[in-house]
Amino acid sequence: MPLNSFGQLFRFTTWGESHGPAIGVVVDGCPPGLALSEADIQPFLDRRRPGQSRFTTQRQEPDSVEILSGTHEGLTTGTPISLLIRNVDQRSKDYAEVARAYRPGHADWAYEAKYGLRDPRGGGRASARETAARVAAGAVARRVLGEEVRIRGYLVELGGDPIDRAAFDAAAIDRNPFFCPDAAAALRWEAALDAARKAGSSLGAVVEVVAAGVPAGWGSPVYLKLDSQLAAAMMSINAVKGVEIGDGFAAARLRGEDNADAMRPGADGRPQFLSNHAGGTAGGISTGQPVVVRLALKPTSSILTPVETVTRTGEAAEIVTRGRHDPCVGIRAAPVAEAMMALVLADMKLLQRAQTGR
Amino acid sequence: MPLNSFGQLFRFTTWGESHGPAIGVVVDGCPPGLALSEADIQPFLDRRRPGQSRFTTQRQEPDSVEILSGTHEGLTTGTPISLLIRNVDQRSKDYAEVARAYRPGHADWAYEAKYGLRDPRGGGRASARETAARVAAGAVARRVLGEEVRIRGYLVELGGDPIDRAAFDAAAIDRNPFFCPDAAAALRWEAALDAARKAGSSLGAVVEVVAAGVPAGWGSPVYLKLDSQLAAAMMSINAVKGVEIGDGFAAARLRGEDNADAMRPGADGRPQFLSNHAGGTAGGISTGQPVVVRLALKPTSSILTPVETVTRTGEAAEIVTRGRHDPCVGIRAAPVAEAMMALVLADMKLLQRAQTGR
Amino acid sequence: MPLNSFGQLFRFTTWGESHGPAIGVVVDGCPPGLALSEADIQPFLDRRRPGQSRFTTQRQEPDSVEILSGTHEGLTTGTPISLLIRNVDQRSKDYAEVARAYRPGHADWAYEAKYGLRDPRGGGRASARETAARVAAGAVARRVLGEEVRIRGYLVELGGDPIDRAAFDAAAIDRNPFFCPDAAAALRWEAALDAARKAGSSLGAVVEVVAAGVPAGWGSPVYLKLDSQLAAAMMSINAVKGVEIGDGFAAARLRGEDNADAMRPGADGRPQFLSNHAGGTAGGISTGQPVVVRLALKPTSSILTPVETVTRTGEAAEIVTRGRHDPCVGIRAAPVAEAMMALVLADMKLLQRAQTGR
Amino acid sequence: MPLNSFGQLFRFTTWGESHGPAIGVVVDGCPPGLALSEADIQPFLDRRRPGQSRFTTQRQEPDSVEILSGTHEGLTTGTPISLLIRNVDQRSKDYAEVARAYRPGHADWAYEAKYGLRDPRGGGRASARETAARVAAGAVARRVLGEEVRIRGYLVELGGDPIDRAAFDAAAIDRNPFFCPDAAAALRWEAALDAARKAGSSLGAVVEVVAAGVPAGWGSPVYLKLDSQLAAAMMSINAVKGVEIGDGFAAARLRGEDNADAMRPGADGRPQFLSNHAGGTAGGISTGQPVVVRLALKPTSSILTPVETVTRTGEAAEIVTRGRHDPCVGIRAAPVAEAMMALVLADMKLLQRAQTGR
Repeated sequence: MPLNSFGQLFRFTTWGESHGPAIGVVVDGCPPGLALSEADIQPFLDRRRPGQSRFTTQRQEPDSVEILSGTHEGLTTGTPISLLIRNVDQRSKDYAEVARAYRPGHADWAYEAKYGLRDPRGGGRASARETAARVAAGAVARRVLGEEVRIRGYLVELGGDPIDRAAFDAAAIDRNPFFCPDAAAALRWEAALDAARKAGSSLGAVVEVVAAGVPAGWGSPVYLKLDSQLAAAMMSINAVKGVEIGDGFAAARLRGEDNADAMRPGADGRPQFLSNHAGGTAGGISTGQPVVVRLALKPTSSILTPVETVTRTGEAAEIVTRGRHDPCVGIRAAPVAEAMMALVLADMKLLQRAQTGR
Repeated sequence: MPLNSFGQLFRFTTWGESHGPAIGVVVDGCPPGLALSEADIQPFLDRRRPGQSRFTTQRQEPDSVEILSGTHEGLTTGTPISLLIRNVDQRSKDYAEVARAYRPGHADWAYEAKYGLRDPRGGGRASARETAARVAAGAVARRVLGEEVRIRGYLVELGGDPIDRAAFDAAAIDRNPFFCPDAAAALRWEAALDAARKAGSSLGAVVEVVAAGVPAGWGSPVYLKLDSQLAAAMMSINAVKGVEIGDGFAAARLRGEDNADAMRPGADGRPQFLSNHAGGTAGGISTGQPVVVRLALKPTSSILTPVETVTRTGEAAEIVTRGRHDPCVGIRAAPVAEAMMALVLADMKLLQRAQTGR
Repeated sequence: MPLNSFGQLFRFTTWGESHGPAIGVVVDGCPPGLALSEADIQPFLDRRRPGQSRFTTQRQEPDSVEILSGTHEGLTTGTPISLLIRNVDQRSKDYAEVARAYRPGHADWAYEAKYGLRDPRGGGRASARETAARVAAGAVARRVLGEEVRIRGYLVELGGDPIDRAAFDAAAIDRNPFFCPDAAAALRWEAALDAARKAGSSLGAVVEVVAAGVPAGWGSPVYLKLDSQLAAAMMSINAVKGVEIGDGFAAARLRGEDNADAMRPGADGRPQFLSNHAGGTAGGISTGQPVVVRLALKPTSSILTPVETVTRTGEAAEIVTRGRHDPCVGIRAAPVAEAMMALVLADMKLLQRAQTGR
Repeated sequence: MPLNSFGQLFRFTTWGESHGPAIGVVVDGCPPGLALSEADIQPFLDRRRPGQSRFTTQRQEPDSVEILSGTHEGLTTGTPISLLIRNVDQRSKDYAEVARAYRPGHADWAYEAKYGLRDPRGGGRASARETAARVAAGAVARRVLGEEVRIRGYLVELGGDPIDRAAFDAAAIDRNPFFCPDAAAALRWEAALDAARKAGSSLGAVVEVVAAGVPAGWGSPVYLKLDSQLAAAMMSINAVKGVEIGDGFAAARLRGEDNADAMRPGADGRPQFLSNHAGGTAGGISTGQPVVVRLALKPTSSILTPVETVTRTGEAAEIVTRGRHDPCVGIRAAPVAEAMMALVLADMKLLQRAQTGR
């Protein structure tokens, strides 16, 4: 079963547990002749890497990537690219409590109901550590997309406090630990997250990812809609509970004439859109406008506030989740969502080329 | 390319255009020995059928389904089930305007950018008519799920006006033309949609689908998450711009302890959940709680209000979309979303059986 | 499960039983803009059609194909192409015996062991009638390949009597009822098959298919080898028990230097091969030489000679298979094998374009 | 593209080049709760390992396997199993000649035609070294199959010299370096292969694989036939040019009544077959009889006898392939073919369970 794979043509398969010796990803279907070295991948992993501020888990993982196959003399060969990231800072002793009782909000109980057993160390395969493999694969996808497609992910809401769209400053995104494009909001978020963390609680967030430079024509009209693939991709990220494209849920509150993206003849002879309520897709196919996706992330379920639960042997218990956790998993989801956008788009690019030769 | 297929094990493939001779679906991977006749499918098609009130398109389609293969003496044989629905009430002359200029909010421009040509009659393959095939396939999926899994779809918001959750009455859903579980809201919606229709406009909606009786253990931890498949399924429905599971975007505004679904020992020895913020999934796997999904549908793009656009030859134009259209496509999306829920769950049931024998 | 689908990018899905109302195929992933009408498909169906000589089943099926979707004004639109062929001349009464006892050499027993039930009329889904759908899909595949790729299938052995390669005459193939390129062999086969038929027996055959004009570079090095896809495609045809590429089994008896296809600089700057032991592939990838495949078909299992068997209720019995059957199923396999060659090559063409842009 | 994956439900993906740092495989879809450690895999790798006699390449590779994921406390967890095998004895300097000119019988020219570039070191991805990853995956597949399914591969012909079926002795297989079940034939093969090796030549072989204990009902009637999957699997092994099932090509020379496998009521109430011409399948589905497959392997293309060829720059040349090569690649194909049989059967087992619950 392609349980751990994603993509039709540009297809990647991830493997590895939070507390095993390593995690990794195999990228299959990559075009040949693209320049690729570890240096092209590492910067993206560094953006997602834990331990860079007090707002993410303190687990220290260098997340150094090794290319084990698929390149020759610095170019992709068209054969599978195997990327390996070693786990360095596991502390499995933290997880005795997890082995004994089910953590609410976590997959513990569902895993056991499914498999009859589970690896309790760090959530095993359910750990957000798996997303490092996606980020590595995403860096390869960016090579496929080339320079023209520019992808940017950032937080637009944290703990229910949204940014001010009027204050949007792309340059601000990398100047705070929240990938926040509104410097004032970042300051508020810092205070709110500090307070939550000290209270043994956690906060949720909303991430937005925008891909500019996507040509019109990527995607497909029915089940392999660009929208549908993006929804699957984003919803597969840990803690994501909602996905919207363009105006999303707000579009359901617009009237037809307000939601329509009117067109005028553009300088290049192609239609020029006067708005982008649709978020860059129509009928499942890219329109040439920026592709805009938002994802809602629930607050981290690993908290120090005690919650009622049940042990594996069926007794009532209270659990607090110690160990090292992100007080807001939404933060590090920004580079992961960027990677998933790149991975979906690379796949759609190859699909379009396959079917139409364009 | 599985462009027009959905599902891994219980897999269906749809075909057909709005104004061709017929549409249809092939269901592959269906278990043998299930009772299935046209009478098991037709009632679901009837619920989605147009022309039943003034709030849906006046196109008259009986949507009679024929089973062309895959059953013998009233039982499924395990071979592909081909279902055919003839198109009866096409009026292709309505579409000369559509052939000349791109309708904003529609796939016209994106289609041409992709394929270099398009079938303008009724939107061709981009027509919501394709969803009849899904509903037919969904009826087969319900046979796979059996009586224990109970799926219900309804509107919780229309034109920005939400239902009162306190007034939720399941019995009301089939007593109004909106699949609305709140009788008072249905009255308000009637007035609002009449007004919009007369003004040549259209309204959006939010549909909620709940599946009760889903056992714990369906789904998968990473890319074949139950959540992820539901997101792809729902986002593939025409006009859908957002999908959320459980509390969805609202979860991003909760604190960790408020979002956690606490557990107590249940009478059957299994954990009993005290809330369902998660919407029935954890780590991509069903928990045994009701699976809850919501989808946002934009207002119909086919409106009588003129909108600026561009012709195929690059001139500026204004377009009004005549023909017969739903003033709120969200209404008929309720039975379609139910079908997609059934189709995803049937697939997940077979996947779970394949991997674990359960 | 893609149980009834074949192909990665150019993917078709067949459905229908021998004695149901119709059979059909949905072709997904077809490039847009190709000229396609029923007239492009019918000639290929006519070549496979039964009842054209006393050497094939006397069932009278016009095998008229209808295009139900996927074209507009005579061109493919890039959306799924649904092709329908009605069954006209079923005689289900012939099959009471088949319902009672398992026919040796047929799938009767295996079907029941698998599904717990089966459709006994004409073998249901196991009938070679399914291959008409492949031939229809194959005609679409030929459009994808264009004029440059030329595919020809013919019999090289019947009842153990091989053709004389020195007497090979492509023009002879359509001048006898055996697709035989050796006129003298055709005369011998006629006598042999008449004798077998009158004795209530049947004969086997070997079919060869050659595709000329396939450019170098189609296929893939490991699991999606051109060879591997051809093997799967040919082995999926009813009654096929063996597949070989190039010299095939004979290659296992050659020495390395005799099997190597030496090269010289060609006039076009590309290597020119001095022989084609490899049958047009190396390392799973086409070399630019003709692709050569052979398939062995067992003698028809439906014979009038009594064979020992077992009834559904477990008693010993003798069975003779009455009804209308091909005394040599290998004959009509020639156009089917041609179709499968076209279908595999079209898929490989799109895969190559997807990955490399060539 | 699943270019480097095989299987629908029990799916594995291999990666790695002959002269890269490592090769490996990711097994996805494995059932949970199966005992699995390196010790379960290593013995199968040891049987395929090079350098064990003078009849295989002298490259020294310990082929030590590491399990990097997917198990916990010695049991499979249902999550992807990543297996790593390091390359130890690369000698890339041997390959300057290969980089300069295309080796006849190898994929060199086809690779460049496809990808525009290639990794010349040891054939890169086209190397038979890839098959070690299959053998590792095959060991996991055997766990899925359990003790009841018993798989045995051996050579039945080498250099055109077949074994004497009357002298078949299963115990002999592991007592000679040829996996030969006929001790007398093994002695003849030894002499023949020594002679060929000294003459700078190479020999082909035919491998037979038998799986006993396969229950009736695995496989599928049309494109996912057991036969079809086995054909794809075997034809994907390096140097294989032909595959046959049961009597294979010989069946094409039998009459219907001689080819039919008659049945009698068995002691267990199930049909008992009186012969196995079919090789354990009917209509694509297993019958409960042993599944029998044969594959023809061409002689090694890497030989010391000079062959005419062309350089990358288009000049005529003669090439001899130095380096360390198997004089008969068919020998080590026996454990690889066993692995592919196990991998196909494990997949079919899960498919049957998925669709029918059996």
